[in-house]
Amino acid sequence: MTSVINVNLPTQSYEIAIAPASLDQIGQSLAGLKLGKKVLLVSNPTIFKHFGKIAVDSLEAAGFQVASYCLPAGERYKTLNSIQKLYDIALENRLERSSTMVALGGGVIGDMTGFAAATWLRGINVVQVPTTLLAMVDSAIGGKTGVNHPHGKNLIGAFHQPRFVLIDTQVLKTLPVRELRAGMAEVIKYGVIWDAELFNQLEQSKRLDQLRYIKPELMDAILTRSCQAKADVVGKDEKEGGLRAILNYGHTVGHAVESLTNYRLLKHGEAVGIGMVAAGQIAVNLGLWQQADADRQNALIEKAGLPTKLPAGLDIEGIIEALQLDKKVKDGKVRFVLPTQIGVVTVTDEVTSDHIRQVLQKM
Amino acid sequence: MTSVINVNLPTQSYEIAIAPASLDQIGQSLAGLKLGKKVLLVSNPTIFKHFGKIAVDSLEAAGFQVASYCLPAGERYKTLNSIQKLYDIALENRLERSSTMVALGGGVIGDMTGFAAATWLRGINVVQVPTTLLAMVDSAIGGKTGVNHPHGKNLIGAFHQPRFVLIDTQVLKTLPVRELRAGMAEVIKYGVIWDAELFNQLEQSKRLDQLRYIKPELMDAILTRSCQAKADVVGKDEKEGGLRAILNYGHTVGHAVESLTNYRLLKHGEAVGIGMVAAGQIAVNLGLWQQADADRQNALIEKAGLPTKLPAGLDIEGIIEALQLDKKVKDGKVRFVLPTQIGVVTVTDEVTSDHIRQVLQKM
Ligand SMILES: NC(=O)c1ccc[n+]([C@@H]2O[C@H](COP(=O)([O-])OP(=O)(O)OC[C@H]3O[C@@H](n4cnc5c(N)ncnc54)[C@H](O)[C@@H]3O)[C@@H](O)[C@H]2O)c1
Ligand SMILES: NC(=O)c1ccc[n+]([C@@H]2O[C@H](COP(=O)([O-])OP(=O)(O)OC[C@H]3O[C@@H](n4cnc5c(N)ncnc54)[C@H](O)[C@@H]3O)[C@@H](O)[C@H]2O)c1
Ligand SMILES: [Zn+2]
Ligand SMILES: [Zn+2]
Repeated sequence: MTSVINVNLPTQSYEIAIAPASLDQIGQSLAGLKLGKKVLLVSNPTIFKHFGKIAVDSLEAAGFQVASYCLPAGERYKTLNSIQKLYDIALENRLERSSTMVALGGGVIGDMTGFAAATWLRGINVVQVPTTLLAMVDSAIGGKTGVNHPHGKNLIGAFHQPRFVLIDTQVLKTLPVRELRAGMAEVIKYGVIWDAELFNQLEQSKRLDQLRYIKPELMDAILTRSCQAKADVVGKDEKEGGLRAILNYGHTVGHAVESLTNYRLLKHGEAVGIGMVAAGQIAVNLGLWQQADADRQNALIEKAGLPTKLPAGLDIEGIIEALQLDKKVKDGKVRFVLPTQIGVVTVTDEVTSDHIRQVLQKM
Repeated sequence: MTSVINVNLPTQSYEIAIAPASLDQIGQSLAGLKLGKKVLLVSNPTIFKHFGKIAVDSLEAAGFQVASYCLPAGERYKTLNSIQKLYDIALENRLERSSTMVALGGGVIGDMTGFAAATWLRGINVVQVPTTLLAMVDSAIGGKTGVNHPHGKNLIGAFHQPRFVLIDTQVLKTLPVRELRAGMAEVIKYGVIWDAELFNQLEQSKRLDQLRYIKPELMDAILTRSCQAKADVVGKDEKEGGLRAILNYGHTVGHAVESLTNYRLLKHGEAVGIGMVAAGQIAVNLGLWQQADADRQNALIEKAGLPTKLPAGLDIEGIIEALQLDKKVKDGKVRFVLPTQIGVVTVTDEVTSDHIRQVLQKM
C-alpha cells in the first residue's frame, strides 16, 4: 500500500510517499523531479550500513551521479562543524545549483543535510528519506533545518522545504526500541493537538512501545495521519507566524528539560512526553482542559513506554530560567500551547512562572 | 532630497530610502516597522568609529535596546568563523525572533550580517545601512547574503531580504577613493545591462574617479537609477531563476580573476570592470554587440579609474578552469551574460573556452 500526502505551500509543493520497501525505488522517484545529475547522499555509519547500498544502487540505476558521505552518529555532532564538513564535500563533488542532497537518516541527519542544502550556493535541492519514526512523522516534513549552538538547541538554521519525502516503513525494523518510543511521543502529540481520531486509534492498541505489538493497519494510520497533520499545519503557516506554533505542544518544557540534562539523559521524544504531561496539567490547572482528558493523554504516553515524570534531581528553577532562552519567547513572555479538548489546542502567554512551578513540583 | 524606491517581492516588500544625513534618523525610520525592541548593530572598527555613535544614539532615542559588535575589517574575515562569532553575540544579547540586526558597513558587513540574521533562530529581521557605493547600489539590495568558503567566494549563503535599506549619501565622504571606483563598476554595469539613460548620464560627466568631481545631481541619479535597476530585476526574479542572472554581467570572468589573485590584488569592482571588458569583447566577437558600444563601455570603465586589462602574469588557463567552479555553471556549461545594445543583455551558454581564451589573450 502506498499513501501519498501533499504538502501545499504558497511557493512550492511536494509529496510525501509512504510505502513499504520503497527505498529501492528512490532513483525512479527522483527521476521525475527535474533535478540535476549530481546527488550527495548524507547519512551516518549505522544507517548507511543498513540502507546505503539500496539507496545508492537505485539512484545510480536511474542515472544519477552519486557521492555519499557519513557524518558521525549522534546529536552532539549536530553542529556547525559538521555543516562545514558537508560544505567541503559539496565543493569536492562540485555540487551545482541543480544538484540534490539526500538525507538518509533520523532527524539529526535530516536537519543537518537540510541546512547544508539550504545554505550551499544559497540553496540547492534536498530530499528527505527519514529512517526514524520521529523523522518520518515530524522532522522530515515542513522545512525546518538547522544545527545546535553550544549553548542552545536548534538556534542556528533556516527554512528549506524538501523536494520530496520518501518514507519506507520497512526501515523501522532495525530502529532501536527507544527511538521508536521517542517518535511515538510526536504521534501522540498530533492526536492531542489536531486529530482526535488518531488519538482514539492509539487508545485502541494494547501496546505502543514496540513495533511488533503495533498492527500494520495502526502503523499505516500512525504514519499517514501524523504526516497529514504536519502537512496541514505547515501548509497553513509555513514559517511559524501563527498556527505552526501548535506543533510545539510539549516542547516548551521539553526543550528546557533536554537542555538542562545536556541532551544526554533523554531522547527528544522522551522530553516531549514529559513536556506534554506538564503542559496538559498546566491547562487543567488553568481551567482550560478536563483532568480526565489529561489522564487519557498521560496513559497513552505511558503505554508508549515514555517517561511521565521529571528526571530525578532536576532543578525546577533551572527549568524556569531555561524557558527564558526558548525561541518561543516574545519580548520576555513564554508562550505555551495548551489543549482545550482532545484534538484542539490554544496558544497563550498567560502562563506564569508560578503556574509552571506548581505543576513541575508534582512531577 | 529624499528618494524612496520600493522593492516589491511576492512575499514581502521593503523600501530603500536615499537621503543625505539620514543616518541620524535611523531610529525613527525603524520605529515604524513593527520590530521587536532588541537591535544588534554590526559593523567594523573603521566604520563604527565614523558613524557608529550617530546610529546607536538615534536607535536608542527611538526606544530600541541596542548592542553593537564590530567584526574585523576585510574580505578575508568574511567566513563562517565570523558568523559563529555573531551567533555568540546574538545569544549573549538574547536576540529573539522579533529582534533586528542592523548592518552598518560595506558589502562584507552586509553579507555577513544578512547571513547571520537569515540563520539565527531560522531568520530574524535585518536592516541594511550600506556605507560603500558598491553596497548602496548592489549588495544591500536583493537579499543575497553569505560568506566565503576557503576555496570559493560566496559559496555559503542564503536569500534573506532586508526589512529596510537606509542610504545616507553623506557617509561616502570618508570612503577611500579606490572603494568609490570599485562601486562605480556596478553602476556602469546597470547602465550596460538595464538603463541606457544612466549610461548616457555617466558619459556626460568629465570624471567618475573621485567623489568631488561628480556633480550632486549625477550622484543622485547614480544612486536612484542604480537602486531602481536592482529593485526592478530582483522584483521580477527574487531567487535567480532567470532574469536576475543578468546582474552577473562582468562577474563570470570577474570572479575567476578575483579568485586566482586570492581576493587580494583586486577589489571586487575592479575585477568586475575587467570582467565587463572581457564579456563585452566576447559579445562583439560573437557578433552580438557593436565594437563601438564596447568601446564606449570601456571608456566609462577607464574614466572611473578602473583597470581594463588583466593583472600582469595571470594564467589564462587558470581562469578558464576556475570558471568551471562558478555557481553559474549548469551541468558543466558556463553561462555568460552578454550585451546586445547599451541597456540590453542576453544570457547564453554558447560561449566556449576558445572564445574566452581568444579575448583574454588580448587583455
Ligand atoms: N526539523 C524539524 O522540524 C524537527 C522536528 C523534530 C525534531 N527535530 C530534530 O530531530 C533530531 C532527533 O531526530 P531522531 O529522533 O530521528 O534521532 P537521530 O537522528 O539521532 O536518530 C536516532 C538514532 O537512531 C539511529 N537510526 C536511525 N534510523 C535507524 C534505523 N532505521 N535503523 C537503525 N538505527 C537507526 C541513528 O543512527 C541514531 O543513533 C533532533 O536533533 C531534533 O532537534 C527536528
Ligand atoms: N549580496 C550581494 O548581492 C553582493 C553584491 C555585490 C557584492 N557583494 C559582496 O560585497 C563585498 C564587497 O563589498 P564592498 O565593496 O562594500 O567592500 P567592503 O565591505 O570590504 O568595504 C570596503 C572598505 O571600505 C571601508 N569602508 C566602508 N564604508 C566606509 C566609509 N563610509 N568610510 C570609510 N571607510 C569605509 C571598509 O572598512 C572596508 O575596508 C564582497 O564580499 C562581495 O562578495 C555582495
Ligand atoms: Zn519534536
Ligand atoms: Zn558585483
